[in-house]
Amino acid sequence: MHLNLFLSSLGHHEAAWRHPAANVEEIIDFAHLQGLAQKAERAKLDSLFLADRYAASRKAVKYGAVSGLEPLTLLSALSVVTERIGLIATVSTSFNEPFNVARRFASLDHLSQGRAGWNIITSGTDGEAQNFNLERIPDHHVRYERAQEFLDITLKLWDSWEADAIIHDKASGIYADNSKVHEINHKGKHFAVRGPLNLSRSPQGRPLLVQAGSSEDGKDFAAKYAEAIFTAQQSLSDAQSFYADVKARAAQFGRSPEQVIILPGICPIIGASEAEAKEKEAQLHELTHPAYSLLQLSNRIGFDLSSYPLDGPLPELPATEKIAGHQSRTQLIRDLAEREHLTIRQLLLRLAGGRGHKTIAGTAQQVADELEQWFTQDAADGFNIMPQLTNGGLDDFLDQVVPELQRRGLFRTEYTGKTLRDHYGLDSPVNSFAETHQYQ
Amino acid sequence: MHLNLFLSSLGHHEAAWRHPAANVEEIIDFAHLQGLAQKAERAKLDSLFLADRYAASRKAVKYGAVSGLEPLTLLSALSVVTERIGLIATVSTSFNEPFNVARRFASLDHLSQGRAGWNIITSGTDGEAQNFNLERIPDHHVRYERAQEFLDITLKLWDSWEADAIIHDKASGIYADNSKVHEINHKGKHFAVRGPLNLSRSPQGRPLLVQAGSSEDGKDFAAKYAEAIFTAQQSLSDAQSFYADVKARAAQFGRSPEQVIILPGICPIIGASEAEAKEKEAQLHELTHPAYSLLQLSNRIGFDLSSYPLDGPLPELPATEKIAGHQSRTQLIRDLAEREHLTIRQLLLRLAGGRGHKTIAGTAQQVADELEQWFTQDAADGFNIMPQLTNGGLDDFLDQVVPELQRRGLFRTEYTGKTLRDHYGLDSPVNSFAETHQYQ
Repeated sequence: MHLNLFLSSLGHHEAAWRHPAANVEEIIDFAHLQGLAQKAERAKLDSLFLADRYAASRKAVKYGAVSGLEPLTLLSALSVVTERIGLIATVSTSFNEPFNVARRFASLDHLSQGRAGWNIITSGTDGEAQNFNLERIPDHHVRYERAQEFLDITLKLWDSWEADAIIHDKASGIYADNSKVHEINHKGKHFAVRGPLNLSRSPQGRPLLVQAGSSEDGKDFAAKYAEAIFTAQQSLSDAQSFYADVKARAAQFGRSPEQVIILPGICPIIGASEAEAKEKEAQLHELTHPAYSLLQLSNRIGFDLSSYPLDGPLPELPATEKIAGHQSRTQLIRDLAEREHLTIRQLLLRLAGGRGHKTIAGTAQQVADELEQWFTQDAADGFNIMPQLTNGGLDDFLDQVVPELQRRGLFRTEYTGKTLRDHYGLDSPVNSFAETHQYQ
Repeated sequence: MHLNLFLSSLGHHEAAWRHPAANVEEIIDFAHLQGLAQKAERAKLDSLFLADRYAASRKAVKYGAVSGLEPLTLLSALSVVTERIGLIATVSTSFNEPFNVARRFASLDHLSQGRAGWNIITSGTDGEAQNFNLERIPDHHVRYERAQEFLDITLKLWDSWEADAIIHDKASGIYADNSKVHEINHKGKHFAVRGPLNLSRSPQGRPLLVQAGSSEDGKDFAAKYAEAIFTAQQSLSDAQSFYADVKARAAQFGRSPEQVIILPGICPIIGASEAEAKEKEAQLHELTHPAYSLLQLSNRIGFDLSSYPLDGPLPELPATEKIAGHQSRTQLIRDLAEREHLTIRQLLLRLAGGRGHKTIAGTAQQVADELEQWFTQDAADGFNIMPQLTNGGLDDFLDQVVPELQRRGLFRTEYTGKTLRDHYGLDSPVNSFAETHQYQ
C-alpha cells in the first residue's frame, strides 16, 4: 500500500483554522511545514504533495485561511531537510510555459536527488484565468489539448540530455558529447519549443507524473501519461469502477496497469472511540461559516448558488460535458446530493471535511479497516491522506493508523529505495532520444 | 561598501571547469553550493546572486560547462541553510507571467524571512525566444515596454495584501479584513491581471529590485525601479560616468539617489604577488577554446563572427540602437576592442575572465586598493564579486580581500539588520493601496 500526505499547514477541513489546536501563524511558517514533512518521513510515507490554485478571491479571504507558499519554492526548501520522502508539486499547464516547468522540475529532482513529482493540472476557474490575461477559463477540452501538447514537450525536454552526455574531459576541453544533447524542435498548435533543456538529465530522468482529473478527458490523459492518480471517490463501488476503468484505459495505451498507481483521497478524524471521533468532527462542522462554504462550493462547481435556499435541494446543474471547469468533481457532488437526498446545508457539511474527498471519523482500527478493504478489493493502490485537522490529526494518523497498517503487513516499515519512483515501484523511464539513437 | 557574490559553481572564467582545482561534478551539487553560500555569509556579504538564461545551445555544450539549477528553486533550498545573506534570483520578464513571478518571489521572501531579491532581465537572444514560441527575440524597446508593464503589475500584486489584512479571529470566523485585500484590475497592452495575489504580504513587502541593463532603455528602467544595479564597467572613468548618469536619472524620477545602489562586476584572481596572480590568469587563459570563446562572443553580441580571421580586427558591428539583443554589452565590447586595438583573439582572452566585467589579477592589497578607489571616487556603492575560479579563488577573496576592506573601515564586520533591504540600507516600500486608503 502507498501513502501520500496531502500537505496542509492547518488541515483540510475548511474550518480547521478556527479549531483551538490550529495555530494560524503557522500557515506560511517554514519551521512548521518542515516539522510536518519530517514526521511523514519518519512514518515512511511515499511522498508528500502540495495542491495549487492561481487566484484568491476577496470574498473567500474574509472567512477562509487562503494564503500559502508557492509549491515549487516550498518543496525546494523541504528537499534540504528531508532525505527520502517524495516531493510532489502541483503546476498548471494552462498558466505556464513548458520550458520553464520542465526546468523547475528537473532542478527539484537534482536538488532532492530523485524525489520530485509533478501533479499536472489544467486549472478550472474563471478567477484564475483572470490573473492570466483571459476573461474566462478555456473549455475543458481545449485545456486538455494544451495539456497534452505541454506534456509531450516536457517529456522531450527531460530526454534532451542523455544520461551520459556529460564527459567533462579536462584534457581535451570537451564538456559534453553533443551528439547526446538534442534539440526537440517542437512546433505545435499551442507551443513552439526548440530545446535542448539547459540542465542535464536529472536523477529520475523525469519527475513522477501525477494527475488528478477524473473526467473523461482527465481519465484518458491520466491513462496515457500518469504514473500516480489522485482521485476523489465517495464509496467503495465508485472507487472500484474508477480503478477498473483507468487500469483498462492504461492497457489500451499499451501501458502496464501496475505502472499506474491509484490513490483516492481519505480525510480522517481519529478518536479513541467512534463516538469521540464523531464528536471531533461535529466540533469542526460547528465552526464552518455557511456563506464561506457556499462560496467554495459555487466556485468548485462553477455555478453561483447564493440565491438558492440553504434548506432546499441542490438546483439542477448544467450537464457535465457542458461544464468548462471541474467536470468530475461537479458530478461527484451532484451524485452525492442526489444519492443521500441532501439539502444544500447538509451538502455543505458533507463537503467541509475534504471538498468531496471521502471523510472517515472513527477509531484508528476503523480507519485501517476501511483502507485495507479498499486496498484489497481493487479500489485503490494506496491513499492520499488528508487529515481534516493537521495539529493533532496528522499525529493520530501517523502514530496510530500507520503502525496498524504495518502490523497487518500492508505498509512498509523501512524505505527500500531512494527515489520517489522507487517508493511507488515504478520503472525508470526510457530516454526517447537514446532509444532512437541505439537502433539507428 | 556593499558586496554581492555572483554565485557560480565552478567560476566565472569560461575555462574554469578545466582548471585542476575545479570539480566538474559540483556544477549542480547542492552541498557544494550550500558551502559557497555559507562561506559568503560568514564573510558578511550583503547577498548572493544567480544569473539566468533560458536556453542552451548544442554547440555551446560541447566546450562549455553549460548546465545549472534553476535560480528560484536553488535559492529556496539555500534559504534553509543560511540565515542572513540576501538571495537574489534572476527572472526574465519576457518569458514569464507576472502573477507567477510575483508569487514566487513573495514565497521566497517568506521562506527566507525577508531576504529575497529579483534581478529583472528582459533576455536578449534568439535561442531563448525559440524556447518560448517565437522565432526571434523581440526588439529591445518592445522588451522594455513589456518589462515596465510587468513590473507595474508585480508591484501592485505585492501590495494587494496590506500588512495587517490578516486578523484570523477564531471567535467570529473572520480570517482577513478584506477591505485590506485588493484586486488590482490591471488591463494593459501586454497583460490583464485581476489579483489579489494568493499569498499574504511578505516580510520585505516586496523583494529587492535589481536590474542589470545598461542601455538607454535599461538605465531609464533602472532609474525608475531598481534599488540595486549590476553593471559591467571596464574603467574607473566609464564607471564614474555611469554612476553619475544613473543617479541623476533616479533623481529625475523623484527618487533619492542613495536608494539606488550601483554594483559594478569585478572578477578577481588573487596571488601572493602580482606575478603569481598574472600567472594564474595565464593558466586559465591557456585552457580556453577559441571556437567556444568565439561562439560565446557571437551569441553575446548577436553577430556571427565565425567567418572572420581570429588575428584580424573586430568587424564593424550594427549601430547600437539597431541591436535587438544586449545593447550595452555589445557597445562595451566594441569600445574595448577599439580602445585597446585588439584582434579578435586578444579580445576573446580579455573577455574570458568575466564576459566583459572588469578583471583584476593582483594581490589582495591591490584588489582592495582598486575597490577602495572606485568606491571613494563615485564609481560604485559596492561590487558584484565574480571570482574567475571558484574553488580557491572565492576563498582568496573572502579570506584576504574582505578582511583588508574591514581593516580599512570600508566593509561591515557584522550584520546589523535582518533583511536584504536592511543590508543595503534601503527604505521599506510604502504600500500603494494602504496609502490611498489612508488619505481617502
